[in-house]
Amino acid sequence: MTKQGKLKGIFTPNMVPLDSKGQINEVEFRRYIDWLIADGVHGLYPNGSTGEFTRFSRDERRRIIEIVTDQAGGRVPVLAGAAEANVKETIAACEYYHELGVRAVAIVSPFYYKLSPDNVYAYFKEIGRNTPVDVTLYNIPMFASPIDVPTVQRLSEECEKIIAIKDSSGDIAHMIRMIDAVRPNRPEFSFMTGWDPCLVSMFAIGCDGGTNAVSGVAPRVTRKLYDLVMEGRIEEARHIQFLVCRLFDVLLYSADFPEAFRMAVNLRGFDMGKGRQPISDEHTSKLIGLKAETRRILQDMGETETAVGSGFDRDQVGEIVQGVVAALQKQGVI
Amino acid sequence: MTKQGKLKGIFTPNMVPLDSKGQINEVEFRRYIDWLIADGVHGLYPNGSTGEFTRFSRDERRRIIEIVTDQAGGRVPVLAGAAEANVKETIAACEYYHELGVRAVAIVSPFYYKLSPDNVYAYFKEIGRNTPVDVTLYNIPMFASPIDVPTVQRLSEECEKIIAIKDSSGDIAHMIRMIDAVRPNRPEFSFMTGWDPCLVSMFAIGCDGGTNAVSGVAPRVTRKLYDLVMEGRIEEARHIQFLVCRLFDVLLYSADFPEAFRMAVNLRGFDMGKGRQPISDEHTSKLIGLKAETRRILQDMGETETAVGSGFDRDQVGEIVQGVVAALQKQGVI
Amino acid sequence: MTKQGKLKGIFTPNMVPLDSKGQINEVEFRRYIDWLIADGVHGLYPNGSTGEFTRFSRDERRRIIEIVTDQAGGRVPVLAGAAEANVKETIAACEYYHELGVRAVAIVSPFYYKLSPDNVYAYFKEIGRNTPVDVTLYNIPMFASPIDVPTVQRLSEECEKIIAIKDSSGDIAHMIRMIDAVRPNRPEFSFMTGWDPCLVSMFAIGCDGGTNAVSGVAPRVTRKLYDLVMEGRIEEARHIQFLVCRLFDVLLYSADFPEAFRMAVNLRGFDMGKGRQPISDEHTSKLIGLKAETRRILQDMGETETAVGSGFDRDQVGEIVQGVVAALQKQGVI
Amino acid sequence: MTKQGKLKGIFTPNMVPLDSKGQINEVEFRRYIDWLIADGVHGLYPNGSTGEFTRFSRDERRRIIEIVTDQAGGRVPVLAGAAEANVKETIAACEYYHELGVRAVAIVSPFYYKLSPDNVYAYFKEIGRNTPVDVTLYNIPMFASPIDVPTVQRLSEECEKIIAIKDSSGDIAHMIRMIDAVRPNRPEFSFMTGWDPCLVSMFAIGCDGGTNAVSGVAPRVTRKLYDLVMEGRIEEARHIQFLVCRLFDVLLYSADFPEAFRMAVNLRGFDMGKGRQPISDEHTSKLIGLKAETRRILQDMGETETAVGSGFDRDQVGEIVQGVVAALQKQGVI
Repeated sequence: MTKQGKLKGIFTPNMVPLDSKGQINEVEFRRYIDWLIADGVHGLYPNGSTGEFTRFSRDERRRIIEIVTDQAGGRVPVLAGAAEANVKETIAACEYYHELGVRAVAIVSPFYYKLSPDNVYAYFKEIGRNTPVDVTLYNIPMFASPIDVPTVQRLSEECEKIIAIKDSSGDIAHMIRMIDAVRPNRPEFSFMTGWDPCLVSMFAIGCDGGTNAVSGVAPRVTRKLYDLVMEGRIEEARHIQFLVCRLFDVLLYSADFPEAFRMAVNLRGFDMGKGRQPISDEHTSKLIGLKAETRRILQDMGETETAVGSGFDRDQVGEIVQGVVAALQKQGVI
Repeated sequence: MTKQGKLKGIFTPNMVPLDSKGQINEVEFRRYIDWLIADGVHGLYPNGSTGEFTRFSRDERRRIIEIVTDQAGGRVPVLAGAAEANVKETIAACEYYHELGVRAVAIVSPFYYKLSPDNVYAYFKEIGRNTPVDVTLYNIPMFASPIDVPTVQRLSEECEKIIAIKDSSGDIAHMIRMIDAVRPNRPEFSFMTGWDPCLVSMFAIGCDGGTNAVSGVAPRVTRKLYDLVMEGRIEEARHIQFLVCRLFDVLLYSADFPEAFRMAVNLRGFDMGKGRQPISDEHTSKLIGLKAETRRILQDMGETETAVGSGFDRDQVGEIVQGVVAALQKQGVI
Repeated sequence: MTKQGKLKGIFTPNMVPLDSKGQINEVEFRRYIDWLIADGVHGLYPNGSTGEFTRFSRDERRRIIEIVTDQAGGRVPVLAGAAEANVKETIAACEYYHELGVRAVAIVSPFYYKLSPDNVYAYFKEIGRNTPVDVTLYNIPMFASPIDVPTVQRLSEECEKIIAIKDSSGDIAHMIRMIDAVRPNRPEFSFMTGWDPCLVSMFAIGCDGGTNAVSGVAPRVTRKLYDLVMEGRIEEARHIQFLVCRLFDVLLYSADFPEAFRMAVNLRGFDMGKGRQPISDEHTSKLIGLKAETRRILQDMGETETAVGSGFDRDQVGEIVQGVVAALQKQGVI
Repeated sequence: MTKQGKLKGIFTPNMVPLDSKGQINEVEFRRYIDWLIADGVHGLYPNGSTGEFTRFSRDERRRIIEIVTDQAGGRVPVLAGAAEANVKETIAACEYYHELGVRAVAIVSPFYYKLSPDNVYAYFKEIGRNTPVDVTLYNIPMFASPIDVPTVQRLSEECEKIIAIKDSSGDIAHMIRMIDAVRPNRPEFSFMTGWDPCLVSMFAIGCDGGTNAVSGVAPRVTRKLYDLVMEGRIEEARHIQFLVCRLFDVLLYSADFPEAFRMAVNLRGFDMGKGRQPISDEHTSKLIGLKAETRRILQDMGETETAVGSGFDRDQVGEIVQGVVAALQKQGVI
């Protein structure tokens, strides 16, 4: 075990606000980071899937980690997404983020090509051998090559620097198999779930924490769920879990990920700007339509306040006009 | 709510012993039922997937329920699998099983053809309107048309006779969504999980019980897991859950379902005979190879005794010889 | 090779008309068979997936083959679907259909449970050893356990009675691999495709025929496509292929299979009755909505005539009324 | 239609040789390009999936197109893969490749995140509006967000600059639907298949060409298959198609894509170097094991010569030694 202690608690896979030119909006970004920390998340996880790491350039990804480590200023640990185009550049990112003082990096399994387990192993082994900073494996089988249980076990036994896995499969049996295979030999190895509706269930079978997109929208509530489970107050935690599941469903399945999360962070009082992926008029209308339900669930969670001085939903009028115009154009009215 | 109370606890989807001619071995079957009841399962669930209902004829399926209800003799409730070739015959089965005194029937969603949700609804609605006996919906998306959340909600609201769902998806989020949608209006509606590695996790979010193949092999242990969770002793339950997951993995994934479960029930001292699906020599050898690991896990569970007067593994020598001969023939040695 | 010659050409997987009580409508059934033969299909294939074999009882399946063989009267060969609940009953069906004089039986790979290749082999091997009649393997991976290439090769080499495979995967590469593996040793083994949009493409790489649902709706056109390809008139065949694809798409993907095929056979002048699977009001409206497009495509195919003395679409008015009433009820208007 | 004529024929998605430091080996790369052109491919397609575009940096991808256009020198058209991290950078790549004189670019649908059809549309529409060079859509649903038929139709009707689609689904019905939807309005729009086992079948239903990995290993043979189909000599083409399918199966399914293609290009006399994805010892042994079968199929194709002055398989001895050592170490012998 590293002297820094086991990774645990709720880490927020934060989004990155963009300005009107599509560039990183640093001021708003720092304000968002402050809010997340103030509302109780245990750590930050920039350059994750929610953070749209693939849509930034290598240099922008580095800038994002610079801002987050600087703004966090040691108040909470930073888990930095470090995946790059190939293993050499990924290791270079590990080195750079180590210098910046991150607690650990998280590296998604190779994607686009689907690799077999032995090559997933070879990839992380190469990283494990060369990284100066602790590494969290990142398994997200719906987007990237799966990391299977024997691979996690093998890597955990051979690479001291590999200290955790973030698993976004939401598969309880898979989590049990991993813990069963790894914990006896590496008791300090950490298991984090990235599947928000399963937090209570995952904690019940021994998971250490979560990296949860919902915590970027409702940080206090997610933190509370964690605290309640740790105190053994399952019934109360379950009530929150059901609300978290509702919010997750609206934000994950009703629009292309992570567009609805961007809308929801806007609702909390941050000007996130437009994403880099062009969005159709239909989709824009759909996102506007999701706001009311998102607000309702946040209200049920008791998450009604917005950040001080925020531009709360100031773009709403503009969006509605835009949606109406698009609809009228489609029907040939204008 | 029916006066009979909510369905809850562990129901065993029992297998059916066959004799040397492939017919139901009634003597051994009754002995097996007695053992399951004695070892503490809350109920029996004949003609489920583990019970290979599709491989019996309509008349045999009726005979199976006759034997189970007769042998149980009211000691535990019976949940009778009642799916037949079409809705008319399924309703006829409901009527017959009602006369036999079952607590409820369980009806799998239509299979072979994949139906859309509205026709899954139409199927169960027709049953709900005509059944004299309580009905449990059975969702097993890996084998049959999925029953989605709106369909469960709609059926629960329109059909008083539909009183439960057995869900074998193992998907926690799906279970949360169902409970969230149904419980407010039908607090006595029961949610049973058919996915053994998720028992603790499912109970943690409000599930009422399970219909678990592992309970047909290790009934005492499965019952104990249930009792521990109900008493709030999650840590101890978790220990058993990990063992249940190990056993499930060996029995589910290492051979074609449910052949390894048959082997495991044999290990507990029952002569289950050969199944009706022809099994290759390779597969037979594989099943023999699984025995040692199955025994080891049962031992870790403290499930070491076998039923009194059993023919414990008497076919083992024969099987080994057969496997060796097959291997030698394959290599052209004999 | 059997003295009866290689299986080839278009075999129609015919549906079965039902009367108002849901029983086999024998008079209409015989009229439908006559029409198919008159319009040029090479053979009949009762008790296939389009024929909803799983929704009939064992005795009804036998009655269906009796009617078809009797009515065909030797004019065209009959390929009888013979899958039953288990291998013993399947072999009994083979024996019975052999006595009835069918050209061959077709046996779908075991379904509900997903078997591994070696047990799929064991199942068909058992049948191949005991059948008195020629057997066609039936591979339909979207509904049943897949039959992989090594299994087809092994069975073709070991079982003389296995003379063909019907493959409904629509996968060209899979068909090439099968032909490449089997044809050198069994030149008379026949390869039939069940995927209607691929007929021209499959014939181009050496397929012998098809068992195509579209031929039950547009028999003359399907036959013509076959004849054109055999004559090397690919361009003309391609034109028909595109229309067949359009019809297939409307009938396969716009409603639960095979409900839209039933509607389409009705359009050709046969009273098919209601199917045994309950259909929702939404689905009924949807089916009515498909009629206009189905008629349009049939017209483009030149398939405008209906069978003599038919009750052409006599239920249309009734259906529209029913659909409107259902919609009004839903909105609480009535 | 652009004045440059319709895209058709065989375009090779070429790999990029790397030197011992993992950098682009320009000398070998130019030699490989010359060989492909000399052996008859109709065009080159750098920065495709076979070309591992995701494993290079933005600058390297630009360098690759510079080398290919320079070396091709107008002898054959170049189709340049132009996908970058976001739409802005993708359009910048289009502009740069246009200056370099490519015939068109090919742009894969957004990957990692799975987009819905309307946002796939929005992405390509943005590109179609801003690109100075002709664009080929690239649909590869196993790796990236699928491009469905209505999206292809809509883009083809709204964007003159979008002139073709490369489809790697291998789905005949999908290809028919696209041609049926687009060709009437855009007769010069080109349909290219990326699925090598379906070339004959795809050409039979009206496809214009292919972008085929096998053509990077066996260019003459792939070209000949194309020529034979165009001359109506289907039987002869079918013979080659079966061999192409065999080669494709060995190279695609026996190792992680595109490692076996690299091995095979090595066999043709080019020093491709090691790929950037770390490869396990097991995988390396497996690749060595595929050489004999690859050579055999190439021989059956008549593709026996290797490029003049080649370092034909000079690393074979080294690899065998490495594999043996790894195996011995695994068994604890050394």
